[in-house]
Amino acid sequence: MVRTKKSPEVRSNELIDCAERLFFLHGYENTTVNDVIREANLSKGAFYHYFVSKEALLEAVATRLAERNLKELQPLFEDPSLDAVGQLNALFAGSRRLKLDMAPQLKNSFNALFKPENVALYHRIDEALMAVSLPLVAEMLRRGHADGTLDAPDPEASALMLLQLRLSVAKVMHKALQRQEAGDLDGAAAMLDGWMRTYGTAIERFLKLPDGTIEVTEPGFSRAFLEA
Amino acid sequence: MVRTKKSPEVRSNELIDCAERLFFLHGYENTTVNDVIREANLSKGAFYHYFVSKEALLEAVATRLAERNLKELQPLFEDPSLDAVGQLNALFAGSRRLKLDMAPQLKNSFNALFKPENVALYHRIDEALMAVSLPLVAEMLRRGHADGTLDAPDPEASALMLLQLRLSVAKVMHKALQRQEAGDLDGAAAMLDGWMRTYGTAIERFLKLPDGTIEVTEPGFSRAFLEA
Repeated sequence: MVRTKKSPEVRSNELIDCAERLFFLHGYENTTVNDVIREANLSKGAFYHYFVSKEALLEAVATRLAERNLKELQPLFEDPSLDAVGQLNALFAGSRRLKLDMAPQLKNSFNALFKPENVALYHRIDEALMAVSLPLVAEMLRRGHADGTLDAPDPEASALMLLQLRLSVAKVMHKALQRQEAGDLDGAAAMLDGWMRTYGTAIERFLKLPDGTIEVTEPGFSRAFLEA
Repeated sequence: MVRTKKSPEVRSNELIDCAERLFFLHGYENTTVNDVIREANLSKGAFYHYFVSKEALLEAVATRLAERNLKELQPLFEDPSLDAVGQLNALFAGSRRLKLDMAPQLKNSFNALFKPENVALYHRIDEALMAVSLPLVAEMLRRGHADGTLDAPDPEASALMLLQLRLSVAKVMHKALQRQEAGDLDGAAAMLDGWMRTYGTAIERFLKLPDGTIEVTEPGFSRAFLEA
């Protein structure tokens, strides 16, 4: 068998792939560096050439997830045909589409992230997402405030508020999935719907937008996602 | 020396005291069950009589912190002389007083909670606080909506939003403390002030209250807290 020489970047990415898979499958706490190198078919010495610790690997997994997220969002934030409200609605529409397309994987991820052994993983992903999103959302609010589309006198602080609210989606999503698993699909869908509507209302009111401007959800979405 | 026999409740509380002290001092990850029993002067067997694991001890620490918090808040939520807006403002005034009175301890706690080895501790406290506060805040919003003091058609979802926003206080507080440590007191105070004002604005707008109704902060507070 010919052993192909891989570039450091390819190797490092392979290690992140393996770690991500194992973290989500077995939990961050339950995954050892040995598990990762076995999966990646690499020596311990080679591993430590790329990452100083399991903690560093966690950081890399979270950063890469956030960067991929950023890459998907970036074009939307740069679309000159959309004002700030159009961008917000495009973000939510994109997020709904993604949720329906990737429902099974997302549900697994949500369930994995809320396990006690994944607190560190959840936290890091959260921080990494916040770090890449904050400047983009702040810039969008600054522009929207300047052209009168919305009202956000302190764009940085307002962006932090909006993103902070965004984080509770994950919590509610997890609760709804638990409720569905317990056999109460109607209750789960109603809870998710109610929360998403209130989230939209919160954004509209906070940015002084007319009622019904922001479409976080649409009729039937919650049930479709839960059943997908 | 006479060994006094302590009730199970006293013993269990002593263990939680020791754990809380050690978790905040050395970090949750760095504290072992052995450290706790040594500090509490108890045998391993006795420890496991009270808690099945370090994880269970963490749960107990978080729950007790949240229950103490609840005990302090409860009278305020039951004060018949205050409407919902009065209660919200009393909550913020109480929180400012507490922050100034306990500034050194609180700053230590903030710094401890944001260390990587305390992710689980932070998360648990967060969850426990959310669990005890959510019904109280939801009930306050329900009453305020019913008597026309404020507008919150879905009190549960709205309470979750408000508490979620509340969580970003800790993040901003931590950032401000880091900035102050780096020598930029003015910048740190301005950041904290700006964030608190925006937080007040967010609450007012979300609950359809007139501008200036909610007093999250007052002039000079942020600087006084940072310098205390």
